[in-house]
Amino acid sequence: MSLPPLLSAAGRIEVPAVGLGLWKLPLAHAADRVEHAIDVGYRHLDSACDYGNETAVGEGIRRSIAAGKVKRDDLWITSKLWNTYHAREHVRPACERTLRDLGVDYLDLYLIHFPIALRYVPFEERYPPEWLFDPQAEKPRMEFARVSISETWHAMEDLVRAGLVRNIGICNFNTSLLRDLLNVATIRPAMLQVEMHPSLTQEKLLRFCREEGIGVTAFSPFGPASYVSIGMAKPEDSLFTRPAVQAAAKRTGRSPAQVLLRWGVQRGTAVVPMTSRPERLLENLSVGDFELTAEEMSAIGALNENRRFNDPGEFAEAAFNTFCPIYD
Amino acid sequence: MSLPPLLSAAGRIEVPAVGLGLWKLPLAHAADRVEHAIDVGYRHLDSACDYGNETAVGEGIRRSIAAGKVKRDDLWITSKLWNTYHAREHVRPACERTLRDLGVDYLDLYLIHFPIALRYVPFEERYPPEWLFDPQAEKPRMEFARVSISETWHAMEDLVRAGLVRNIGICNFNTSLLRDLLNVATIRPAMLQVEMHPSLTQEKLLRFCREEGIGVTAFSPFGPASYVSIGMAKPEDSLFTRPAVQAAAKRTGRSPAQVLLRWGVQRGTAVVPMTSRPERLLENLSVGDFELTAEEMSAIGALNENRRFNDPGEFAEAAFNTFCPIYD
Repeated sequence: MSLPPLLSAAGRIEVPAVGLGLWKLPLAHAADRVEHAIDVGYRHLDSACDYGNETAVGEGIRRSIAAGKVKRDDLWITSKLWNTYHAREHVRPACERTLRDLGVDYLDLYLIHFPIALRYVPFEERYPPEWLFDPQAEKPRMEFARVSISETWHAMEDLVRAGLVRNIGICNFNTSLLRDLLNVATIRPAMLQVEMHPSLTQEKLLRFCREEGIGVTAFSPFGPASYVSIGMAKPEDSLFTRPAVQAAAKRTGRSPAQVLLRWGVQRGTAVVPMTSRPERLLENLSVGDFELTAEEMSAIGALNENRRFNDPGEFAEAAFNTFCPIYD
Repeated sequence: MSLPPLLSAAGRIEVPAVGLGLWKLPLAHAADRVEHAIDVGYRHLDSACDYGNETAVGEGIRRSIAAGKVKRDDLWITSKLWNTYHAREHVRPACERTLRDLGVDYLDLYLIHFPIALRYVPFEERYPPEWLFDPQAEKPRMEFARVSISETWHAMEDLVRAGLVRNIGICNFNTSLLRDLLNVATIRPAMLQVEMHPSLTQEKLLRFCREEGIGVTAFSPFGPASYVSIGMAKPEDSLFTRPAVQAAAKRTGRSPAQVLLRWGVQRGTAVVPMTSRPERLLENLSVGDFELTAEEMSAIGALNENRRFNDPGEFAEAAFNTFCPIYD
């Protein structure tokens, strides 16, 4: 096995380019999975309050450190501020809760999970609170909070000053939101995390971030694969079977999954694949010892159809009775 | 001739649904064109500092009022704050300059022209300053200013309080920028003006504005037609010749242009067509006395291909050596 490359953004941060995505990792398996991932070489964990498994993820981290396999500083740990905690006074308690659950005393990176501020739900009432304000209501809905991104960002900056987090960033922002954020930021965002894969290449957003010295992490690097089980994509949308991906896999002797991850890494993004199969952990990590040709990169990039699978403007209406577009 | 319908947004404003777009109207013809438009029944003028013709537009307004054809209060006059004047201290002088040029003592609506803050250029140096900071430079570029939308908006609100403008709004914003603006606004935006036509229907953005009580004005309601002469669209992109448009024109006995404008008005937007041919002024205005069927509305809306012609993320690089995406 070769270690994955490091991604650096404007010389400011160095992130292991392949991280372990923890979304949808069942609570019951999370500690073992994290421990196993660290065993096979993962040093970058992509967590979030909303994934509902931070205590178990923390248990996996704790065990690995206790066993002397890694030190805290060997790990890059990302987590994300949930939508219900955007108000200035809720940001620090939310971060502290995540730190406690993960069992660490700092995060390498803390991200605003969505540019959507939802009404506050106290920890003791429900944690993680997810999207609905009152899940027991007859027709439960999301309820918005009147909190600006600027307010939330300034509170995120305070976390850096307080030493709780080393870097801050955002998820699911477009170029206009980013530009406006850069105009109010005292501490600039180190990282943008967005959905990015060959069906949604987002060339301009990637270039904008590169020019602004903002790192980019691609979530759902396999594209539709993560969304089939939750009904947000169809099996036939799969990128694994596309000729351009298959051809590169054949030439390199790697799996289509590895080709998709390598494509993401080679264009300068970090990738945070999740897998439900432990035997795939090592496979996903092993993308540092082969290269795609310029032609293969282009052919895979040409699969772009601006197709987004994770869009609150689509899923929130069906799932939460709430119209919540953010990309339109 | 029948008067065009009024568009109201959340009961707050009433705008004549067809306005005269003044972009690209040559200075030499602007006064006569405005006077002529008012003669044939236009009561909504869509102006902007950047169009470079506000003194001539003002002359047309002045003549019409002096001749007793209209009173100031019969007119709905919109203008737009240019990108170089986003800083708090420049917003009021920019508005006052527009008021002086137009020869009126208030605007019905003042819009932020783009969510892009550019470096300030003093009036005496160049007016309108357009996109480039130094057009004489060897490789002239846009230069950005570090001004947040929130700062600009609060200065816009001050114009309402000072009585210089009756309503304020924005152009070229998406749903995320709008949501963030609504979270900082003391005075809510009355209007969003965006590119909108059957090739770019923006259903979610329109619905978001409707639910938030924000009126929508569609610029370039003919789609590509306004962009062919400046090389940003091809003649074959034309919407006038599409079967769905032709069929509706044939059934109603109207022109394809009237069908496109009626489609915009009937879905609840104001439209601000520009025409280089004076004889078309009346034709464009006359869309209040026929209706499209639900099937015709759908068939025309089904032409959507999310195709945007006016995108700084495209034109700024070629024209101004500057990468400036806002929709990506």
